Amino acid sequence: MANEIRVGLIGYAFMGKAHSNAYIKAPVFFPEIAARPVMQVICGRNEQKVRQAAEQYGWSRYETDWKKVVTAEDVDLIDISTPNNTHAEIAIAAAENKKHVFCEKPMALTLSQAKEMRDAAREHGIKHMIAFNYRRVPAVAYAKQLIEQGKLGTIYHMRAVYLQDWILDPNFPVVWRLDASQAGSGALGDLGAHILDLAYYLVGEIKAVCAATATFIKERPVAGEAGGLSAAAEEAAKKATVTVDDAFVACAVFENGALGTFEATRFANGRKNHNRFEINGSRGSIVFNLERLNELEFFSREDEGGTQGYRTILVTNAQHHPYVGHWWPEGHIIGWEHTHIHQVADLLDAIGKDQMPCPSFDEGVKNQAVLEAIATAAQTRRWEEVPKV
Amino acid sequence: MANEIRVGLIGYAFMGKAHSNAYIKAPVFFPEIAARPVMQVICGRNEQKVRQAAEQYGWSRYETDWKKVVTAEDVDLIDISTPNNTHAEIAIAAAENKKHVFCEKPMALTLSQAKEMRDAAREHGIKHMIAFNYRRVPAVAYAKQLIEQGKLGTIYHMRAVYLQDWILDPNFPVVWRLDASQAGSGALGDLGAHILDLAYYLVGEIKAVCAATATFIKERPVAGEAGGLSAAAEEAAKKATVTVDDAFVACAVFENGALGTFEATRFANGRKNHNRFEINGSRGSIVFNLERLNELEFFSREDEGGTQGYRTILVTNAQHHPYVGHWWPEGHIIGWEHTHIHQVADLLDAIGKDQMPCPSFDEGVKNQAVLEAIATAAQTRRWEEVPKV
Amino acid sequence: MANEIRVGLIGYAFMGKAHSNAYIKAPVFFPEIAARPVMQVICGRNEQKVRQAAEQYGWSRYETDWKKVVTAEDVDLIDISTPNNTHAEIAIAAAENKKHVFCEKPMALTLSQAKEMRDAAREHGIKHMIAFNYRRVPAVAYAKQLIEQGKLGTIYHMRAVYLQDWILDPNFPVVWRLDASQAGSGALGDLGAHILDLAYYLVGEIKAVCAATATFIKERPVAGEAGGLSAAAEEAAKKATVTVDDAFVACAVFENGALGTFEATRFANGRKNHNRFEINGSRGSIVFNLERLNELEFFSREDEGGTQGYRTILVTNAQHHPYVGHWWPEGHIIGWEHTHIHQVADLLDAIGKDQMPCPSFDEGVKNQAVLEAIATAAQTRRWEEVPKV
Amino acid sequence: MANEIRVGLIGYAFMGKAHSNAYIKAPVFFPEIAARPVMQVICGRNEQKVRQAAEQYGWSRYETDWKKVVTAEDVDLIDISTPNNTHAEIAIAAAENKKHVFCEKPMALTLSQAKEMRDAAREHGIKHMIAFNYRRVPAVAYAKQLIEQGKLGTIYHMRAVYLQDWILDPNFPVVWRLDASQAGSGALGDLGAHILDLAYYLVGEIKAVCAATATFIKERPVAGEAGGLSAAAEEAAKKATVTVDDAFVACAVFENGALGTFEATRFANGRKNHNRFEINGSRGSIVFNLERLNELEFFSREDEGGTQGYRTILVTNAQHHPYVGHWWPEGHIIGWEHTHIHQVADLLDAIGKDQMPCPSFDEGVKNQAVLEAIATAAQTRRWEEVPKV
Repeated sequence: MANEIRVGLIGYAFMGKAHSNAYIKAPVFFPEIAARPVMQVICGRNEQKVRQAAEQYGWSRYETDWKKVVTAEDVDLIDISTPNNTHAEIAIAAAENKKHVFCEKPMALTLSQAKEMRDAAREHGIKHMIAFNYRRVPAVAYAKQLIEQGKLGTIYHMRAVYLQDWILDPNFPVVWRLDASQAGSGALGDLGAHILDLAYYLVGEIKAVCAATATFIKERPVAGEAGGLSAAAEEAAKKATVTVDDAFVACAVFENGALGTFEATRFANGRKNHNRFEINGSRGSIVFNLERLNELEFFSREDEGGTQGYRTILVTNAQHHPYVGHWWPEGHIIGWEHTHIHQVADLLDAIGKDQMPCPSFDEGVKNQAVLEAIATAAQTRRWEEVPKV
Repeated sequence: MANEIRVGLIGYAFMGKAHSNAYIKAPVFFPEIAARPVMQVICGRNEQKVRQAAEQYGWSRYETDWKKVVTAEDVDLIDISTPNNTHAEIAIAAAENKKHVFCEKPMALTLSQAKEMRDAAREHGIKHMIAFNYRRVPAVAYAKQLIEQGKLGTIYHMRAVYLQDWILDPNFPVVWRLDASQAGSGALGDLGAHILDLAYYLVGEIKAVCAATATFIKERPVAGEAGGLSAAAEEAAKKATVTVDDAFVACAVFENGALGTFEATRFANGRKNHNRFEINGSRGSIVFNLERLNELEFFSREDEGGTQGYRTILVTNAQHHPYVGHWWPEGHIIGWEHTHIHQVADLLDAIGKDQMPCPSFDEGVKNQAVLEAIATAAQTRRWEEVPKV
Repeated sequence: MANEIRVGLIGYAFMGKAHSNAYIKAPVFFPEIAARPVMQVICGRNEQKVRQAAEQYGWSRYETDWKKVVTAEDVDLIDISTPNNTHAEIAIAAAENKKHVFCEKPMALTLSQAKEMRDAAREHGIKHMIAFNYRRVPAVAYAKQLIEQGKLGTIYHMRAVYLQDWILDPNFPVVWRLDASQAGSGALGDLGAHILDLAYYLVGEIKAVCAATATFIKERPVAGEAGGLSAAAEEAAKKATVTVDDAFVACAVFENGALGTFEATRFANGRKNHNRFEINGSRGSIVFNLERLNELEFFSREDEGGTQGYRTILVTNAQHHPYVGHWWPEGHIIGWEHTHIHQVADLLDAIGKDQMPCPSFDEGVKNQAVLEAIATAAQTRRWEEVPKV
Repeated sequence: MANEIRVGLIGYAFMGKAHSNAYIKAPVFFPEIAARPVMQVICGRNEQKVRQAAEQYGWSRYETDWKKVVTAEDVDLIDISTPNNTHAEIAIAAAENKKHVFCEKPMALTLSQAKEMRDAAREHGIKHMIAFNYRRVPAVAYAKQLIEQGKLGTIYHMRAVYLQDWILDPNFPVVWRLDASQAGSGALGDLGAHILDLAYYLVGEIKAVCAATATFIKERPVAGEAGGLSAAAEEAAKKATVTVDDAFVACAVFENGALGTFEATRFANGRKNHNRFEINGSRGSIVFNLERLNELEFFSREDEGGTQGYRTILVTNAQHHPYVGHWWPEGHIIGWEHTHIHQVADLLDAIGKDQMPCPSFDEGVKNQAVLEAIATAAQTRRWEEVPKV
């Protein structure tokens, strides 16, 4: 009989739904993983909603106090899918209770907080993972293989953007993601964390950055209860100040000498989930866009003379492309949710085999270091070195 | 408590997997449907494989004889996901046992067989549905809305292709899909059935067709046991004759005067699941491609002068686009499997409400009539009227 | 000193403008051609307009009677850019006067007329060329090279469409292109001629066809004088009957066994000059679209495993791609007019070297035979063999 | 009779060819312009080559010393198409001789040089224009109209790249464009100048920038005589140092608060002439790419609900789109060279009407100021304000 891992999920909203789906599907489509999840308990502050989520997704029970979950005897793994300001406290408590921890990005509000989380995890010998699910897009994982095989040669450039447009309307309220006390930052931590992790994963460490941030709409309506504002914020007047960035832009120099540009915004009209990057090397180039996540564009300078061109690879071939053999025949595309299923399958498999999952908190801390360097550079208005962590 | 429908699934291979996934997910993501599925029994001839499938997908038990399933007291709905030559016998037996029937396409080997299925279903008063899952792609369902709103005006043209390339290799064996006794036809029934249903759904009935078919590689290796050849075929020599079409092309005239071209092939190098159509009308046009199923191209002649152009709609907006509100925020794309989940959700909801699901066997028969007219026209080498059914 | 060819151009409208431009530019950008053009005389019925055209484009003089041009002593080459019903008479008269002939497509109103033109040209030993300018798109010429190198292997499929939308408005008048007595046919001869020539050029001869045509709007306003209706038509009432096809669809079987689909229409909303084809073979595939004429899509089954995909070749590399070395550095795209410049450069070079240009009237007759077979098949409603010519 | 402007063109290479073509074609396709060019004299240092160019393009005579051209009595307009280090001297001399000046970009090696040019031009009351030909791409000119009509609303973002790959090969020699003494800068001045002018034209003035530059390959073979190295450089050893940037990246803040990212490189494998920008505003967005210069992507938030999406406008409609009415029917695309023809037509028309052409040296100086701020910021490693000029 397969090893079992009893999961406690903190958070039932967007990420809670995506993670629940992953726990349902990972054992069905990845039956060979070394440990199967048991959907033990889901936790949230709103009892009515968390009860409904437990029913809908099939969690055995629910809690409204996360402390009961991190101390529960029947839970092996804590999945943190809550707003960013709670990550550190929950993760450290979980580690202290010898629970494995799987934490959504961005890891924390600050670099020092992230380091504390990492140090606690190390100290207590637990398994830990940070949820950079876009590494598990088959096209991205395949891009990684191409780069490791040298198909791009020496890398000269990465340009990455993560563009959305969901707060263009000035009447969109100050939800928790627009509140620095809960989110830490805006587009930078929410979207920038993803593209900067892909930069680390595919190109390597960033040495220094310069940057600017902007908050285009500085006052917005206060969010209703549903919006999830802190109690303090709700007491405020009808209009609240947006305390995070709407967008950031940054230039970067990688340790290996490559140049990078990075940008994330929630003000790019018509872009819904446009996480796009292009990497150019001496032997070839690749392009990826999350809105067409089943595709990878690849240019090879080694193609025969006149036939060179960017090719659109439909990354659905079981023989050649990661993950997709668990799904459908070639050409039958998968969706965004599958990146979470792959991530959870890899997480469970690693824990089942007593291995550290990847990316661990070590890489989460590196990511946080770049986020902090960018935020700092936008303040100092000069190039900032990314601290070694 | 929600109504329950106990399902018996016949077939555990490609479609069996897709349907199993749909029964798992439909109640989780469409919790409001009028009836929830109970995954009662799965059936297949190979005991080892069907047992494994039952375990993997969570069916309560398995059978190796479909007759036991259609007569089982604890089953309400028979899901037929077997090769085409078995559809009629199973469906008719199920109807006689007062089970609802959900049948994969193409409906049958011949038009007369399809009519018998429909007549049996009518006679016994069961609910019946034919599995044209591509109607449930959000982009296609939204295209239907645009057409019904008159956004395309009078329709002049439909051109549709369904292109794959999985049997280009002459050493690919004669699996059941290449054996007329099991499949009825090749690309025509397998792929053509889909695009002809979309033609019916979006444009209307076809009046007459002319056509050609081709079998480019006429002899192939015999399939091993795994390939699923009939016992008779397995006795044959190492090389077997391909008895179905590799491809067909057809011209069509619709009842409303529009012109159509239709083509399906398994020999279009580089095309994996390229189910693409374009419809042109007096006020606008639409284009769809299953390999990018989250997108719909739309041209409106009523756009302001110089700004007219084909726009790429990312069909993921909960407020405006069908089905997607059950999934993820805008821009987070879904995959091919979701079309089956939508289909099963609609099926269960209809039965739960004592309504006839859509498309019923009535439309399956209409589809079979066009398939048969095309096959006939390819033989007679003249235009053939599509019989009224 | 370079050899000179004195040109008489009959027609000053759309094609007259395109050809004039070609005579101006060919010697500048193709200075190595064996003969340079002398822009001697331009001819048209409307004196005011032809005088203006002569001035604007730099023709030495003008005429209003084409007979004066074909008999002029100072003219070596007759360029026929007039409505289709005049091609035969002018070409035969030119041949009789020992002038070389360059004739716009479609060659003639009927197959027998086209044969007479070819026979006259042969009898009088002149050089003759039919203006299928799309063979001279660099991407198309390069596609031809790829096919000849075997990069596509055995060809199984061609699907070609030529889609426009300029007569969608029911108030668009009956210009000469909608009048059978002047144009012979509608979309078939105007647009279909092009794609059927590309089929012949790239895949080979067509054996048999089935087809349908449609005239969606059967009555339209009479064209004003400017529209160029015949005198007889102008005498008619305000509404005139459209006597040509608005669109055609056809299936084809090539001599080599490949299947084809062909369609041309002036009713494809949003398509302006969408001359697109796709060819699938056992080793690879190509796709071309005139609206992006600097690009060629190419799929090679011989690309390394996971990297296979349709690549977009920017056909602007002087070292590898035809014609483009005469223009600009790589990536600096050319336009539609350049196909005419290439065509005229090749024409002049051939005549200068005393060689027959390609495609000659021989291939024009073959094209006319397919056009006629399609028109016939649409009438007889059965497959028609393409006559050998 | 139309006014005539006698042109003296300095430079016969790439830009010399493009400008010559423009002088040939502008009067033919823009016959209404207020002044027609007379192709009087072309000038270059290599007598053999300049003689050949004169013959090929139809210049009345040639010179090998530019000073003879700027002082020639029979010349009204000096067209400077030479390496960047010569612009200032020629332009100032031309102004002193009361010749109008049309100068290729980048305007000069330094900002102070550019100011001197502008001041001389102003002092002598001549007409002056800087050659930012991409303003005359119909799609770009149309984008400008859309912005001026408010279709984009408040602009939040511009991201622009100009990507090429022609010096990826380490054996590519140090041609003049890689020599700071002749070119001033590398990708920055050559490619960056273009995208920064488009930023100014479409969005407005840039307030401050931060940046990095890189020279990925620092030593290269010395160019042969043909390469055009200065005499001093040729005396050097076989390997020469590359003294310009291979690439730059920059962040920018516009005066109006919008954020920008800008990047140009000659090391983006597979990108040939990829001058692409995207602009996002509160009401809509646009995207342009020079490799598909006939197209403009446009997103409008005011499109009806579910139909919103980026539309691809084929910018070839005579009624709505700038310039294209002079060319061919809708859908018949134009090429890169046409941007130069439009530019020269506008230049001649302005001079003929005694108006200042646009963009004048005033805007050239503004462009140079941004280039210099970027170069400085890459050195100081801090944000630099763009000086007011």
